[in-house]
Amino acid sequence: MPKVSEEHLAARRAQILDGARSAFARHGYDGATVAKLEEAIGLSRGAIFNYYDDKLAIFQALAAEDSRRWLADFDEIGIDGLLRRLAEQDPAWSRVYIEVVRRVATDPEFAKRMAEREPEPEQRAAGEHIAELQAEGVLRDDVDRKSIAAFVNLLAYGLMMFGVVDERADIGEVLKLVHGGIDAPK
Amino acid sequence: MPKVSEEHLAARRAQILDGARSAFARHGYDGATVAKLEEAIGLSRGAIFNYYDDKLAIFQALAAEDSRRWLADFDEIGIDGLLRRLAEQDPAWSRVYIEVVRRVATDPEFAKRMAEREPEPEQRAAGEHIAELQAEGVLRDDVDRKSIAAFVNLLAYGLMMFGVVDERADIGEVLKLVHGGIDAPK
Repeated sequence: MPKVSEEHLAARRAQILDGARSAFARHGYDGATVAKLEEAIGLSRGAIFNYYDDKLAIFQALAAEDSRRWLADFDEIGIDGLLRRLAEQDPAWSRVYIEVVRRVATDPEFAKRMAEREPEPEQRAAGEHIAELQAEGVLRDDVDRKSIAAFVNLLAYGLMMFGVVDERADIGEVLKLVHGGIDAPK
Repeated sequence: MPKVSEEHLAARRAQILDGARSAFARHGYDGATVAKLEEAIGLSRGAIFNYYDDKLAIFQALAAEDSRRWLADFDEIGIDGLLRRLAEQDPAWSRVYIEVVRRVATDPEFAKRMAEREPEPEQRAAGEHIAELQAEGVLRDDVDRKSIAAFVNLLAYGLMMFGVVDERADIGEVLKLVHGGIDAPK
């Protein structure tokens, strides 16, 4: 495939994802009709679904984009940076996640399709990153990396829910407690 | 009011709440129609709505029941017991919460009614309980009780979400990390 075409492809995909992200945040997952997606993206349905099979595929691409960013955050700005970003995440976007989580729990067909596409490698990589920090003596090593990852995930879900229900937490103080939990003894 | 009538009232309310809890867990909040509530409760709509104004009032009574139980758990079995119970909570019931949280976030009229009725005293009491544990030297006192309460709430929301998305955590290992975070230094 010639290079110009690859660039065009990437630009189109970015345009679709950016527009869809706004449409989902604004109208919710169910509320983001094809007409509203077309309007937010600025492309016809024919063009949009030439790049992605359907609305769920677009959401999954956005979730994969988030996963990659969270993992990059984990590497670059650490657990603190990751949790701070989640605490500041647009509640409108967190709501879309809550909506999809609920749909997964109540709609077996939707759940099946989510499971088929769910990206797993990112989660393994987070565990590897934790193992490295344990080996370096940054994180405690008397609790396995899976449980430390679960602990961080629990807090991540919690921060997302806090945003949605408009509960406040002093993230700096919460991070003190998190570090008390996961840091290697000094 | 004569005593027999008070007992009758309490028994009827308990019957309504128990039946409604099953109906919500089984069909979801939106899915639990009045007909399904009648069936699960075993009373006519006339009788049910003689005790509670509407479906939302029933859900709020169930949420208040949960709050009271969580607070009692906090007193009787501590943060460990509370988080262990949340980790074991029926995901079908957690889904109802997620559904209501989403509705609060997307339906301003519903949010207004939730806010009007939301019971606050329980939350204050949890903060007081934490302050006592700080004074007794069980919990660290260099982080304010509000932030410790927020930390526990974040984990509680996280455990609820884990149940709904079917993610697993070794709760014993997670509790080690929690205690590392919140316990007073030995």
